Order: sequence, then structure tokens, then C-alpha cells
Amino acid sequence: MNRGIIRYVLGKVIQIEALLLLVPVLCALVYHEHEGFYYLNVACLCIIVGTVMTIKKPKDSVFYLKEGCISTAASWIFLSLFGAIPFVLTGEIPNYINALFETISGFTTTGASILPEVESLSHSSLLWRSFTHWIGGMGVLVFLLAIIPMGGGGSINLMRAESPGPSVGKLRPKMRTTAGILYTIYIAMTMFEFAILVFSQMPIFDALCTAFATAGTGGYGIKNDSIAGYSPLIQWTVTIFMILFGVNFNAFYYLLEKDIKKAFTMEEVRTYIAIILVTIAAITLDILKSCDSFFDALTKSSFQVASIITTTGFSTTDFELWSSFSKTILVILMFIGACAGSTGGGIKVSRILIFFKAFFKEADSYIHPKSIKQITIDKKPVAHDTIRSSNVFLNVYILIFVFSILIISLDDNDMNTNFTAVLATFNNIGPGLGGVGPTENFGSFSVLSKLVLMIDMLAGRLELFPIVILFHPEIWREVLDRRVARKKTIRKKIDRIERKI
Amino acid sequence: MNRGIIRYVLGKVIQIEALLLLVPVLCALVYHEHEGFYYLNVACLCIIVGTVMTIKKPKDSVFYLKEGCISTAASWIFLSLFGAIPFVLTGEIPNYINALFETISGFTTTGASILPEVESLSHSSLLWRSFTHWIGGMGVLVFLLAIIPMGGGGSINLMRAESPGPSVGKLRPKMRTTAGILYTIYIAMTMFEFAILVFSQMPIFDALCTAFATAGTGGYGIKNDSIAGYSPLIQWTVTIFMILFGVNFNAFYYLLEKDIKKAFTMEEVRTYIAIILVTIAAITLDILKSCDSFFDALTKSSFQVASIITTTGFSTTDFELWSSFSKTILVILMFIGACAGSTGGGIKVSRILIFFKAFFKEADSYIHPKSIKQITIDKKPVAHDTIRSSNVFLNVYILIFVFSILIISLDDNDMNTNFTAVLATFNNIGPGLGGVGPTENFGSFSVLSKLVLMIDMLAGRLELFPIVILFHPEIWREVLDRRVARKKTIRKKIDRIERKI
Repeated sequence: MNRGIIRYVLGKVIQIEALLLLVPVLCALVYHEHEGFYYLNVACLCIIVGTVMTIKKPKDSVFYLKEGCISTAASWIFLSLFGAIPFVLTGEIPNYINALFETISGFTTTGASILPEVESLSHSSLLWRSFTHWIGGMGVLVFLLAIIPMGGGGSINLMRAESPGPSVGKLRPKMRTTAGILYTIYIAMTMFEFAILVFSQMPIFDALCTAFATAGTGGYGIKNDSIAGYSPLIQWTVTIFMILFGVNFNAFYYLLEKDIKKAFTMEEVRTYIAIILVTIAAITLDILKSCDSFFDALTKSSFQVASIITTTGFSTTDFELWSSFSKTILVILMFIGACAGSTGGGIKVSRILIFFKAFFKEADSYIHPKSIKQITIDKKPVAHDTIRSSNVFLNVYILIFVFSILIISLDDNDMNTNFTAVLATFNNIGPGLGGVGPTENFGSFSVLSKLVLMIDMLAGRLELFPIVILFHPEIWREVLDRRVARKKTIRKKIDRIERKI
Repeated sequence: MNRGIIRYVLGKVIQIEALLLLVPVLCALVYHEHEGFYYLNVACLCIIVGTVMTIKKPKDSVFYLKEGCISTAASWIFLSLFGAIPFVLTGEIPNYINALFETISGFTTTGASILPEVESLSHSSLLWRSFTHWIGGMGVLVFLLAIIPMGGGGSINLMRAESPGPSVGKLRPKMRTTAGILYTIYIAMTMFEFAILVFSQMPIFDALCTAFATAGTGGYGIKNDSIAGYSPLIQWTVTIFMILFGVNFNAFYYLLEKDIKKAFTMEEVRTYIAIILVTIAAITLDILKSCDSFFDALTKSSFQVASIITTTGFSTTDFELWSSFSKTILVILMFIGACAGSTGGGIKVSRILIFFKAFFKEADSYIHPKSIKQITIDKKPVAHDTIRSSNVFLNVYILIFVFSILIISLDDNDMNTNFTAVLATFNNIGPGLGGVGPTENFGSFSVLSKLVLMIDMLAGRLELFPIVILFHPEIWREVLDRRVARKKTIRKKIDRIERKI
């Protein structure tokens, strides 16, 4: 294992966090809040730690998938460990485990909160919460790749570990250019949403936080009733942008390249839009009788469908009160999730497509046993490796899901709560149903359950394997072995010296 | 499509059903019940229909996987359609849909009942219910293969469509011998259980029904409280036999062949036993405080674990009242199911093994990207095709599961009830949780929901594809095309005659 490069990447990430922490500091200056002081302190801490870790440049800058996974997982964990400190220092979330839960939920764009109410938080902390979504949405390592030239090969392994979806689309031959393009699109779209929200008469601070949380498909609201209190115009703006941020970013790249046909024929995007339209129609009809008007039902169902399929988790109504049918649709959408290569979570539409196509292929093989058919997406055959890894993804997804529910069930909440708590965190959505519904929070879980849910959020955001690898005994053996080896060397040296004497 | 052979197999199956219906007729003679008359009538009907269908022997007796699947699916559907009639005629289940649900639930060894109480049924009907489990457990086509010489090749396609598990183990080169061995073991074990139950002072009628329901891992009780009212000795006997009938029958074959080592080193069987022991221990500790003694807790947890993992569905206690942790374990066991090649349902332990091994293989490949490792079971490499078909099985399983829940949710029961209703029928268990818990029944569902659950039971018992194929448009196109073709031929003939005139 190349520990040098892992340490170096980690150090750089912590340095970047120092910069990011200046955003709430600035906010504190604007609103004259003393909380900014704590954010500044933590930023200084990050600079010191980050600098110490990056003083020694690694000898060997090549890294493989293993190093890619470990750096990614470790980066996200350290980001959260440091990012949680200000909440404790300001006293707004005095318990560190709760603060860590809130921060991981932020960075992983989950939006599951342990806070019973948010309106009493300072502006700086509200902005930091929403800003973590924005950072986590596109990924901090993608950002690192975009700004820092990483010598040596293998940087695709970093990108692969952090980007959602079964395969990473290299837009340009150089990873750095690809990362740059992705971030440019991301920033431009966030600014565009911010502008429209301000134009729709949303207060500037609210618009900024909402734009961050929408862009990262996170879902932290800055009001206790999430987005319910804003005008329908604002609600529709957020709806549209949630859907846009759930689209595979390659589509936007094709649009930029003026390859409009290629953008609009992407099978994944078309399926994603089709699912959204069908489910909006079904839920609108189902909730019609309990709404004021058709438009009201359409607004509510569109918002909730967009919020859930993109795994954002904003809400404008308590869907806990909807019929079983509508709730079942929402639960199915929670599993499906957004497009690969977007900021959203879940299993991803492209994987669902692969599963459906594998099913139809198998059914055909029963009827025409001798025909050989290949699974294609966008008229290109899907690599055998992608199908295999999608299948393994599903296996591991189910294993983690079941294991998490089993541990959570020790808290003895009802099964619905346990199931949707794991569902909502693992798919990076935010609210679930029952005891973790849109009007409830995750504060009442035990520390053990919170730890499990935190791991679920990270595993969900990083698409399982970077986190799973951390639990691999071989990684630990390597760490421990090195210690054993070091002790042995020292023992030998002492022996030699003793013999000389 | 070779329709001749499908019709012929179907006719033979219906003829066999006529014979099977004589069992409740005999029972009625013993107990002087007039219900036997109706069973005799239906038996006569079956003989007539079966004979008409088998008068013309098929020209071509070879059949492929397609014909195998369709014959199997059609056989099970027809078996149930006829088998439900007596319940309606005796007036014990006046509604035909309910009677069909009860019969499909019987043949598929599910044991989910629409009856609020069973003790008022006649002996004949109680025996018929339990006997359907026994027939469905090993499969009526396996029986057909064992007794009737099927000329031509391809009979393995029948066996493949009906036997549970990712691959069919051919015990002997000839399918007929294999089928014969399986039925011999099955009959011997059923008789052995019956003898021990009688010896444990269970009434003879009760022992017979219970032995049938245990052997088929069905779960229809003949008492309203299932097995709860019997002595601990009887409960332990049933527990042991449920576990035995969930073992891969190949293990018993190896024992018969005195290859004891081979029987006891089967990885699937060892895993199955390990899961049972671990979960019994966990649940016993969890329910200890609510039980009279350690032995009482052990008896209850062993019984429920055995009943659920083998998908039998008997109960000795209302596990709805247990803690979330114990209930979650039971739900996990519902998914896992018994061994392949047993009479139990569920995903099957061997598939779970394959999924776990695929996961570990993938995790290793992240750490040693260049190592090539194969998945092995019993030290033999698992065929690529078996892994692929297990993956497709999981995809289709999830699709059917989700789609079923969505339709059931239209009834607007709570989500827990919908989820476990599908879980309990699709995995051929019987009772679920909530509105379909061990003290409830399936009677309150709408006709649509009942139809969906019936399809789920059949799909679960026949391992998805034979039933899925029935919905394939090409099969229907073939049926319709033939009609169109026939019309065209007639048209042409008329044209020719007209031209002559």
C-alpha cells in the first residue's frame, strides 16, 4: 500500500476544508455573529494539520484502486470529523456524535437531521450545513483533481471511487479537464438557481442555502417546515432544479458541446424523466381528493417525487399522511435514485436499466435458447465487467441494508421506522417514514444506531466499496503488520547493540 | 412450440389429480362425511378431462426449456383450478377466488389461509388442504417423471422447471431414476415423522395432516392455534422434521449411499444448520425475559426459526408480540429460505452463499487487482452460468416483489402488512406480520390483491421463470398467430373453392 500518497491526498483535502470553512466565517462577518470565531479556529486547525501532512511529498505518486478507495473513504471521514467541530464549539449541537451525524449527513448529501428544529441555529451554522451538501454533491476529490495537478497515473481511481454510477464517463482524455468541466457546470447551474430564486423573491440568505442544498441534492432546509412555507413559484423552481441536478452531468456536457441529439437520446436520462412523469401522474391522481385543487395536488406531488427520486429530501407536505399507494411509490423511488454521474444517490437509474435488460435477455433465452443477445445502453453494448459489478453492487447493497436494519432493530422502534431509517440514510435521501418521517428527526436513535447510519450514509454516497474496503481484514493486517515489522526491526537493532557490548 | 406434448403432460397431471382426490374421499368414508361425495365428483371430472386430453398421443415427444416451463406452470395452475372446486361444492369456502387462493397456497406449500378459523372444516377438507402441501412439496411433475416413462429427451427441462434451486443435481444419469429416488426418500421420511408423532400421543388424523404439512414445508394447521396446543414433545418432533425437510435432498441420498462424509461436508447444508443455530441462540436470549423458563424460550425460538427458515409457517406463539430485533431476524430468515433441492421456498441458502462469495471475491479484487479467483462451492468451481442465473434470479425476484407490493398497496393497508403479505406468499411461508401475522388471515384483501398474491405463490414455488414466461408477449403472439394462421388457411380454401365455381 502506498501510504505516502494517501497521507498527502488527505492533507490536501484537510487544507481545502480550511478554505471552505471561511464561507461560514464570512457569513458571520455579514451577520455580526460570534459563531464565526469558532469556524475560524477550526479553519486554522485544518491548515496546521493539513500542512504537517503535506510537508513531505510522497516518493511515489502512482496509485491503484486500493489507494483510490482508501484515500476517498479516509478523506470523507476526516472532512466530517473536522467539519463537525464548530457545531460543538458553538454549542448548537453540544454532543459530538450528533454533530458528526449532522456533518456526515451534510457531506454525503443525505439531509437526515438530528435537530428537532433548525430555526434557532445561527446563520453561519445554517450556511455551513447547506454548504456541506454543495461540497459533497460533486465531491471534494473531484475538486482536488480539478485544481491540483496530480503527477503520475491512476488519478482515475480517485474519480472512480468518488463518482456515482456503474462506470465513470471520461469526458476528456485528461482526468483534470473532466473534473474541471464537471465543476464548471456545477457552479454555473448553482448560480443560475440562486439567481432565479432571488428573482422569485426568496430572501438572499435563504436562496443561497436552498441553492446549495438543491445542487448537492442534499435537502437540509433552513426552516422547520422545509420548503412548505415558500410560494408555489419558489417550490416549482426548486422542483425543476432538483430534477436537473439528478440528470447525468454528461448530458449537460453534450449540450455545451452543442451535441443536442446526443444529450436528448441518452437512455438513462429518458428513463429518468419517464419515471418522474409517470409517478407524478399516479400520485397526483391519488392525492387529488385531499388537496385544494388539481394544481395544488400537482405542485405537491411533483415536488415530492423530484425531492425523493433525486434523493434530495426537501418536503412541502407531510407525505406520511398519504395513502399506502403513494407512499409505496415514494419508497420505490427512494431505491431507484437519480442518474449515474449526477449529484443524487440511490441505486441509480442506469443500474436499474441494466437489471431490467438482463431480465428481458434471460426471459428471451428461455424462448429462443440459441439466440445470443447482448445488453446495450445507448445502442452500445454494456461491458461484461459493468454488468458483473452492477450485480455485485446489488448483492453488497442488500447485505449492508439487511445488516444495518438488524443492528438498528436493537433500539426496538417499529419495523417501518427501522426500514425507512436505513433506506433514507443509505440512499442519501434524508427523511423516511414512521419515526423518521418528514416531520420527525434521527435524534432519538442510540449511539450504536447512529454509527451504523453514518457508515450507511458514507457507503451510500461513495457507492459501497470504498467504505467496505475499510472493513477488509487485509487492510488492517497491513497496518498492524507494519507495526509488528517496525517492532521487529527495533528488536533486532537492540539485539545487535547488545551483542556488540 | 410443441403444443401436443404440453397438452399430453397436462392431461396426465389432471388424471393424477383424480387419483389424489381419492384420499379425501377415503377419509370421508372413515368419518362418514357427506363431503366425500363432492370430492368423488371432482375426481370423476378430472378423469374425464384428463382422458380426453391424453387420447391423442403427441407426435413429437421431445421438449425444450420453453415447453418445460409452460407445461409446469400450466400443470400447477390446472391442478389448483380443479383442486379448489370441492371447497366451493361443500360450501366450506363458498367464494371460488378464496377457494383458489387456499388451494394454490396449499399446492405451493405456502400455507397462507383466507379462513378466519379452520376447526369447523370437515375432516375430508382438512386432509385435502394438508395433502396439497405434500403433493406440492416434491412436485407433481417429479412424480409424473417417476411413474411414467417419458420417451424422447428433454425431460430434465420439466424437472428443472419444477425443482427448487439454482441448478438441478442429477443423482443418476436417468431422470426417471432420480425422480424415483427423491420420492422414495420423501415418502419414507413422511412415514417416519407420522410414526413418531403418533408415538408422541398425537391423534392419528392430526399426525397425518401435520406430517403432510411438515414434509411439504407447507404449514396449514388443523387447529386455530396451529401447533401451540400440542405437547412440547410434539413441538420438538415437528421442529426437527421441519429442519430435516429443509435440507438438500441430495444429502439424504448420499447418506443412503453410505457416503456419510459427502453428506456432512455439503457447504449449503452446513451453512443452513449454522444459520439455524445462530438465530435460535439470538432469539432465545432476546425473548428469555418474556418466557416461563430457558427451556420454554428455547422451544419457542427453535420452533419459530425452523418454521420460518424452512418456509413452513406453523406457529406455536404469536411472534408479532416479539421485539423488533427478533422480528427482524425472522424477516431475514423469510428471505433466505431453505436449501436448494429441498421442499422449502425462499431465495435458497445456496444462492445466498453464491452472493456472499461473489462479494468477497469483488472485495479482494480491489486489494489484489491482478488475482484471478473463482467462486467455489463444495470445493468445485461454480459454473459461470449458475452465477449469472442467480444474479438474474435476484433481479427478477426484486422486480416481482416491488411490483406486487405496489399493486397490493392499492388496498391501503399499512406498509408493514403489504410488505410481509408479499414476503410471506412469494417465499411460500404463510404468515407474515401486522395484518397478516400468525393470528390473522388473508381474507380481507381485494380480489386483485388476491390474484397478485396467487401469482406470487406460484412464481415463488416454481422459481420465477416458468410463471414469468407465461407473461411473455411472444408466447401469446404464438397462440394468437396460430389462430390467425388457421383463419388464413380457411380463407384461402374458400377462395380456391369460389374461384372453381
